[in-house]
Amino acid sequence: MNDSFHVYDTTLRDGAQQEGLALSVADKLVIARQLDGLGVGFIEGGWPGAIPKDTEFFERARTELDLKHAQLAAFGMTRRADLAAADDPQVAALRDSLAPVVTLVAKAHDRHVELALRTTLDECLAMVRDTVEHLVSEGRRVFVDAEHFFNGYQDNPAYALEFVRTAAEAGASLVALCDTNGGMLPSELGDVVHTVIERTGARVGIHCHDDSGCAVANSLIAIEAGATHVQGAANGYGERTGNANLFTIVANLQLKKNLHVVPDDSLAEMTRIAHAISEVTNIAPHTKQPYVGFSAFAHKAGIHASAVKADPMLYQHIDPEVVGNDMRMLVSEMAGRASIELKGRELGYDLSGDRDALSRITEKVKVLEAQGHSFEAADASFELLILDELKGEESQRFFDVESWRVIVEQRQDGSHMSEATVKLHARGERIISVGEGNGPVNALDTALRNAIGQIYPELAELELRDYKVRILEGDHGSSSRTRVLVTTTDGRDEWATVGVQENIVAASWNAIVEAVTYGLLKLEG
Amino acid sequence: MNDSFHVYDTTLRDGAQQEGLALSVADKLVIARQLDGLGVGFIEGGWPGAIPKDTEFFERARTELDLKHAQLAAFGMTRRADLAAADDPQVAALRDSLAPVVTLVAKAHDRHVELALRTTLDECLAMVRDTVEHLVSEGRRVFVDAEHFFNGYQDNPAYALEFVRTAAEAGASLVALCDTNGGMLPSELGDVVHTVIERTGARVGIHCHDDSGCAVANSLIAIEAGATHVQGAANGYGERTGNANLFTIVANLQLKKNLHVVPDDSLAEMTRIAHAISEVTNIAPHTKQPYVGFSAFAHKAGIHASAVKADPMLYQHIDPEVVGNDMRMLVSEMAGRASIELKGRELGYDLSGDRDALSRITEKVKVLEAQGHSFEAADASFELLILDELKGEESQRFFDVESWRVIVEQRQDGSHMSEATVKLHARGERIISVGEGNGPVNALDTALRNAIGQIYPELAELELRDYKVRILEGDHGSSSRTRVLVTTTDGRDEWATVGVQENIVAASWNAIVEAVTYGLLKLEG
Repeated sequence: MNDSFHVYDTTLRDGAQQEGLALSVADKLVIARQLDGLGVGFIEGGWPGAIPKDTEFFERARTELDLKHAQLAAFGMTRRADLAAADDPQVAALRDSLAPVVTLVAKAHDRHVELALRTTLDECLAMVRDTVEHLVSEGRRVFVDAEHFFNGYQDNPAYALEFVRTAAEAGASLVALCDTNGGMLPSELGDVVHTVIERTGARVGIHCHDDSGCAVANSLIAIEAGATHVQGAANGYGERTGNANLFTIVANLQLKKNLHVVPDDSLAEMTRIAHAISEVTNIAPHTKQPYVGFSAFAHKAGIHASAVKADPMLYQHIDPEVVGNDMRMLVSEMAGRASIELKGRELGYDLSGDRDALSRITEKVKVLEAQGHSFEAADASFELLILDELKGEESQRFFDVESWRVIVEQRQDGSHMSEATVKLHARGERIISVGEGNGPVNALDTALRNAIGQIYPELAELELRDYKVRILEGDHGSSSRTRVLVTTTDGRDEWATVGVQENIVAASWNAIVEAVTYGLLKLEG
Repeated sequence: MNDSFHVYDTTLRDGAQQEGLALSVADKLVIARQLDGLGVGFIEGGWPGAIPKDTEFFERARTELDLKHAQLAAFGMTRRADLAAADDPQVAALRDSLAPVVTLVAKAHDRHVELALRTTLDECLAMVRDTVEHLVSEGRRVFVDAEHFFNGYQDNPAYALEFVRTAAEAGASLVALCDTNGGMLPSELGDVVHTVIERTGARVGIHCHDDSGCAVANSLIAIEAGATHVQGAANGYGERTGNANLFTIVANLQLKKNLHVVPDDSLAEMTRIAHAISEVTNIAPHTKQPYVGFSAFAHKAGIHASAVKADPMLYQHIDPEVVGNDMRMLVSEMAGRASIELKGRELGYDLSGDRDALSRITEKVKVLEAQGHSFEAADASFELLILDELKGEESQRFFDVESWRVIVEQRQDGSHMSEATVKLHARGERIISVGEGNGPVNALDTALRNAIGQIYPELAELELRDYKVRILEGDHGSSSRTRVLVTTTDGRDEWATVGVQENIVAASWNAIVEAVTYGLLKLEG
């Protein structure tokens, strides 16, 4: 992408401040790949040097991340007061992360400099100048986040403007004006952005929070006023009410402001990416999220029904397909045949020639999703479902399960024991096997491998990578269901499978059986 | 309230179009009372004549609702084509609802008139004129909702403007311009509102949907452009992405635009009212909702905590008390002593006098968080930890566990069985009990209740509300851990506890034991 306008994602840093969100390094790598798939320009990976997990992220990113669109940015503070930038270990950690971009945060509100930083305004400006100059001389591109800029501008506009000038003159590519408390409203914010650009001539970005419910609008208004760099987080994650929702901003810019900020074909991946990230964060997707929410194009029948039939665009602000979402009629049986066909094509199956199979698959997906399956995050399970329909269930059955049992025990000394037995049939044999593990799922997995490992030695290559559980609310008084997502790897690729059952162990077993089946298909094929 | 500015609530009509929302007449009456408590000016109760439940609502409202601030509005369509308004049964139902205000919806977009209504533009204008005149002559105040106004204005501005003029000249008090598809962005919407007021001289209102994530901002911009009537729904309920969130709009207007739209003491009830309405709709409150969300003033970052202690307003856009919300400190691995002290104070424990205890607690939190505990989502576990340090572990031990065992089985017929045994000591007795369940955790929970239910009969009040599982990556070659978060309720309050173990069942057991211990402490205290 060209450099004239930046989509800068801060999910992994500021978004991770959301209550209930805790990302491992592996989670961060997965999310970074998804964001790169969307085509964002920059991914802020975290704060190396301050947070050990983030230091590790940048290390692993060098070998494990192969980004196509995005550049990584390391976030951190300017040098401490009364210390040379080159001697500050925190600044060194930013440099040593080897991220091509460093985003420095510093206080643009005089009260914060005095109360929180406990230094003078002059020293704070010197900290900005020195750190920017040092990192630029080390070959890094430097962005500056002007923290609390808008409150600062209200209280002391001279200092706030001087802050922007100082950063720009020291060599920062741009200064992102931050509404850190998230309390701004659009008109007031737009006026300030306009004035800052006029008075300083600096390149300006915008970073909003949603405390007034205006984060997206504030970002758009800032861009109209001349900002050419916008920060936000996937799904609007972030502290308190969240950061500006990057997905909503990108879709608004691309579809309504004629700003080409991500590739068009990436935009059609947005819904899938939003949901895939939800699965990694294990935070239930917000169904009403603009553009990508499950309900975003759901029409309740009634006054709208006939008009929607005549022309869906009468009741939709955009065609949902351009963001990879679907229109849903909440009473009728209209369904996502088109998206299933698209998804099949993506996995290498042309369903367009077989309308019957397409209908059967669509119907099956609808039934299973209604029961709580989530194929968006479980491509492998979806592919097995397609194969069931196209080739028959038998073609992919490597074993038939008769029964299984797990015992988990806490002994008197406080230690734990998990033991599983599995009874199954494979290649005409009846096999009984036992497995131990550090938990019931691990024990079952071991027992399954013990049972069929000799018949299918390639099983040894498969490894359970991740395991996620979500309890789904029961509707209409039925008891709740458990959804388990399992990620498996053969050392080269990863695939995800899903299991849904009332019983968490049974749901896990189903996901593991699909994971192993898919792995065997893949390794044998 | 005076009539110069209207807060018009449409929760019971347009908000009720939300997916998954179904309100009984009794529900509607309860919600109307809550909205009146907030001090809104108008409550749109539904569509009498078209929806039997809504006809009943207006009947019962006459005797069962004693509104202090609000007036009821009945929503409906203009007369049918080629029928006198006085002869149209649907118009008669609006009149007969005896609501002092009737809000008529009609199509301001030419394409809709042709495609959905299948009549001429002239007839559509006549329908508006006749129906308004008829209802005004019957002593009703009439508002007109100009459906699809903004799309209509884009396609055929002459008709859209004529629509507004016609309604106003016929005697409508105001015309609410509706962004029915919700796709507008603030600047464009503001320009149109400005032009409409300038060109027609009519009193104008605004009705927005959130499909572009800008419903609140669009409403504010319209008000700046001269609209003096704003429509929205409680908690942003509504079809697709929802209607404009009335709570966010009201708080923004009152606290940031100096518009006195509801009584000040009502504003302090807003958080309570938002949650009370969530209870009626049975839709889980959106934790990140501006102003009233559970997380709206929750601070996590360690970097912020010391500054927050110095002056909370450094990191808050408003004082949460003015909307009846609270600041909360989230305890995480980034936490230092300052945030632990603040968190303790929030829970009612003054740790400032006991520096040793504060240090021990901070240290323990760091160790446990490093092992995978996540106290930010488990206040009850954190409180038990404080009590351990302040009062000793013994003071909160209601039973001593000797051992437990769970068996989960998939039988040959595919059915599942979960059975747990628990051995423990309580009040000097050794107790052995058994429990069944739809999964291992449920079975253990049942066995524990069976074991101590007679000793602590108040246990019957406790109910498991939510259960979340996260697998944590093992660091440095150690095996992975499982984190379980359990939410429990006694019908009044909810509390969350955390358990971390390699074994998922053991982690769940630990979280349940803490949940029960906390519940017993609470119910006994």
